[in-house]
Amino acid sequence: MSLSNESINKVSIGPGTLLGPLPSVLVSCGSLEKPNLITIGWTGIINSEPPMLSISLRPSRYSYELIVSDGKFIVNLVTASMTRALDFCGVKSGRNLDKFAATGLTPEKLLPDFPPAVAESPVALICEVKEKITLGSHDCFIAYIKDVFVRPQLLDKNGALCLYTTDLVNYLHGNYYAHSEWIGFFGYSVAQSKISVARSKKIMHLISATTREGREKFSSERKQGYRHDRSKKKASRRTKN
Amino acid sequence: MSLSNESINKVSIGPGTLLGPLPSVLVSCGSLEKPNLITIGWTGIINSEPPMLSISLRPSRYSYELIVSDGKFIVNLVTASMTRALDFCGVKSGRNLDKFAATGLTPEKLLPDFPPAVAESPVALICEVKEKITLGSHDCFIAYIKDVFVRPQLLDKNGALCLYTTDLVNYLHGNYYAHSEWIGFFGYSVAQSKISVARSKKIMHLISATTREGREKFSSERKQGYRHDRSKKKASRRTKN
Repeated sequence: MSLSNESINKVSIGPGTLLGPLPSVLVSCGSLEKPNLITIGWTGIINSEPPMLSISLRPSRYSYELIVSDGKFIVNLVTASMTRALDFCGVKSGRNLDKFAATGLTPEKLLPDFPPAVAESPVALICEVKEKITLGSHDCFIAYIKDVFVRPQLLDKNGALCLYTTDLVNYLHGNYYAHSEWIGFFGYSVAQSKISVARSKKIMHLISATTREGREKFSSERKQGYRHDRSKKKASRRTKN
Repeated sequence: MSLSNESINKVSIGPGTLLGPLPSVLVSCGSLEKPNLITIGWTGIINSEPPMLSISLRPSRYSYELIVSDGKFIVNLVTASMTRALDFCGVKSGRNLDKFAATGLTPEKLLPDFPPAVAESPVALICEVKEKITLGSHDCFIAYIKDVFVRPQLLDKNGALCLYTTDLVNYLHGNYYAHSEWIGFFGYSVAQSKISVARSKKIMHLISATTREGREKFSSERKQGYRHDRSKKKASRRTKN
């Protein structure tokens, strides 16, 4: 492995939270009678078995008190059409404001003893706090994902979850983005040509069946040859996250 | 706040790691002489001041040993054109393979005593491990972001970072996506009309100057009236992540 001087092409801008694209989600907390919503960008999966995620909040936030007192919250994934509400819930405090009412979002009771979810969200992750870590400006809640609720329309006839056209919002450096295009499935770089073609074809069909963009993408991908991976080597062992 | 039965529209599919869209990044670790790359989806920002992130790895991974022994790693953000290499580094082990050589990616030395970054990546986050938490299948590394390196082309004439057209990859439920479209800036839902219009115009100009998609988006957004927010109320206090 050699290292050429030409390859040094970046400059330092100092420490910062420049990871991305990040999920930007609506966390619901509190009681059914007086629930609250908070927009969270500082979240991520931290464990597969058992499924766990973290969310980080400033202790000054109203939702912080609710989550500390209750030990429960729901992570609601957000679609492009909900972006204005998402932004609103990130800049306003729920201490003296009913954010469900203010945004027109609908509380949806999924489980007893848990805060309501957001009905407009396609996916809700039911979370129970395991522990809280003090880091600096934020405290990090480490939580178990006890259950996941999805719209039945997102399940195919075999019960498999299809999120290809769900149009979720992502967040990068102070801006919201959506309308992402599908590139490939996990393992496509080493998948057998036959498997890769069949699987990609199936996914592109699912996408094209629902959107105009999908149909366009399908046609463009075909031209680029993504669906015709030349790799003949089978993935000997695929390690997953 | 009322809750109608009609609003109950989701079904349980059991616990799972269904957060998204997630960043999918290349983490570089090890020495300059024998560096390694690993694809990480289980990552997120956990603190603003000081800037901190977490990455979670299975202890069986080769990179796990390297990070435990060195206490340092670099998070390299990934663009759409790097997706095949990204996928490859997630399914292959570096124990007996030079992943830089195998993918054609270029090691870039940014700081002494740190692993090399990936030259092809537009943004590199220099990370130092604070602590490691055992959770189950994965261990979670809590790390300080000690510095951020970016391509100088990403800085405007005032030194402000512009990531609007960087085309970073996101990951959702086993699939890679990219080519996201800009929706709005943090706080746009409550920004004064004049401020919102001016800022959106500037951003759309930056996007449209670099891409055909940007120009199309610009024209379509104009029609939808995103740039003409009618809200007259000034954000009294904007809380940030």
